[in-house]
Amino acid sequence: MLQQLFSPSVQHTLDLVGIFVFAISGALLAVRKNFDVFGIAVLAEVTALGGGLFRDLMIGAVPPAAFTDLGYFITPLFAALLVFFLHPHVERIQAGVNVFDAAGLGLFCVSGTVKAYDYGLSLTSSAALGLATAVGGGVLRDVLANETPSLLRWDRDLYAVPAIVGATISVLCIHYDALTPLTSGLAIVTAFVLRLLAMRFHWRAPRAWNRRSTVREE
Amino acid sequence: MLQQLFSPSVQHTLDLVGIFVFAISGALLAVRKNFDVFGIAVLAEVTALGGGLFRDLMIGAVPPAAFTDLGYFITPLFAALLVFFLHPHVERIQAGVNVFDAAGLGLFCVSGTVKAYDYGLSLTSSAALGLATAVGGGVLRDVLANETPSLLRWDRDLYAVPAIVGATISVLCIHYDALTPLTSGLAIVTAFVLRLLAMRFHWRAPRAWNRRSTVREE
Amino acid sequence: MLQQLFSPSVQHTLDLVGIFVFAISGALLAVRKNFDVFGIAVLAEVTALGGGLFRDLMIGAVPPAAFTDLGYFITPLFAALLVFFLHPHVERIQAGVNVFDAAGLGLFCVSGTVKAYDYGLSLTSSAALGLATAVGGGVLRDVLANETPSLLRWDRDLYAVPAIVGATISVLCIHYDALTPLTSGLAIVTAFVLRLLAMRFHWRAPRAWNRRSTVREE
Repeated sequence: MLQQLFSPSVQHTLDLVGIFVFAISGALLAVRKNFDVFGIAVLAEVTALGGGLFRDLMIGAVPPAAFTDLGYFITPLFAALLVFFLHPHVERIQAGVNVFDAAGLGLFCVSGTVKAYDYGLSLTSSAALGLATAVGGGVLRDVLANETPSLLRWDRDLYAVPAIVGATISVLCIHYDALTPLTSGLAIVTAFVLRLLAMRFHWRAPRAWNRRSTVREE
Repeated sequence: MLQQLFSPSVQHTLDLVGIFVFAISGALLAVRKNFDVFGIAVLAEVTALGGGLFRDLMIGAVPPAAFTDLGYFITPLFAALLVFFLHPHVERIQAGVNVFDAAGLGLFCVSGTVKAYDYGLSLTSSAALGLATAVGGGVLRDVLANETPSLLRWDRDLYAVPAIVGATISVLCIHYDALTPLTSGLAIVTAFVLRLLAMRFHWRAPRAWNRRSTVREE
Repeated sequence: MLQQLFSPSVQHTLDLVGIFVFAISGALLAVRKNFDVFGIAVLAEVTALGGGLFRDLMIGAVPPAAFTDLGYFITPLFAALLVFFLHPHVERIQAGVNVFDAAGLGLFCVSGTVKAYDYGLSLTSSAALGLATAVGGGVLRDVLANETPSLLRWDRDLYAVPAIVGATISVLCIHYDALTPLTSGLAIVTAFVLRLLAMRFHWRAPRAWNRRSTVREE
């Protein structure tokens, strides 16, 4: 039983922080898409909880944590309210939001990997589900908003790669029996810093080789 | 065990009516999107059964009712056939369809809430899943049709709020041990009438405060 | 226990071939949408595994085969790499890819039906899930790429009908206790050949009758 990386209350607080910042990103997109207050709340919930929901369905952790922990459900509603009333101010501190979002990315790729392994999945599958936990909510957010998922677009700074690195460090630690609060903290920080660097220096992933000029530029 | 609000045969008949009218709305959108007969059937099935499928996955009711009750599966196909042959006539009675759709909304927000509670979820989570049961199919319908979900758009009459009210009344009744055929019927009728009023008077939910002029109007 | 249509190793090899060609179709769409290398891999995985994932969630086969069999997870990554480096060549042999895709369609509609029946679903539900196994990945691929699912569009050659025929033959064989490697092979080949004929002669499904001229042409 590895699931608690840190003391339960520390872990829970970190989870809520991650959920909160993911919800902010969902609510901000809803405002930009001109959705009403209810659409803002839905997009906040989906972005914050979607990745964990997907992982829990895959590993058979039913009902998912999103429906058993009241804090998980309420937190995105607070984020939605905040954005509803104060969104010009929230947008102004977008850079700050991005830093927290990077922290959420780091946290969820590691905790998602560990939870999947706890439910008996292989190391590779656990890492894949850690990645899905970290990025799944954002993909659902973009699908509901009828946009091409920013995760898949070439013209966005690296987002998946930091999560893949964090998940990979986690499964290596598990494999070598070295998963401790210290090493998992390191995995989180590595993913977090990589994402910050990717935003700072606009690191991007390559597109297919020899793309023909007829390829649609979007 | 609260799950049967009414006698089983009454409940089942109501379910099939709700499924039928939701399927009509899916099939009509498919015709408007110029889909073929198979696309019409798929959109009818998804719209009618999607909300319940989502709820059943979340509460661990597997296989979902949509796959264990043949009537649930067949009914949307009838709706699809009807729209396929008679859609100009169905469109002409759109107002009538909307009344039935409002009835389906009322019914499913209450029955979805009660089923989730029966599977051991908390009152808050049960209400959230009741809402998801009522509106989930419509969201899936719009995602598959590559449209922005009308649930989220500010320029549509209130749809979620009536369902939230119905689900909330249901959990209050459960909490105070007052869930009877009469009170759940009242919850259904309240959601139904609220939706009818929202359509009649074009009630809408507010968008975010202080939206800047640069926000895209869609 | 019908699940093994053929000897385990033959069945597994066929599964991997089907997964590979479905992944190719996902990766090619990702290149056309100008996604980066990571988006290509995600679309390859989703297209190849999405249909089976959906079926496994519905029948309660958790964790899904996609997460328990390493080969299922790795194969789409190979397809993504291949398309990443060689996509102009892959596009040039699109006709060949389509033939393999038709083979995957035939294989999955039959094996999906049989697996669902093995998990206790009715004949009708098993056939529906066989169809979903065969076409679900392609629908998810198009939703993630923010395109109208080609499955639903009238201006594409028949894709679902061959899978419906294959699934129907399978449940008839099950019903009459005649499911053998020979008969299931026949069901696969029938669906495969029907799909090839549909592509060759551009068979299409009808749209709704009496569409008014005001219907949007897309």
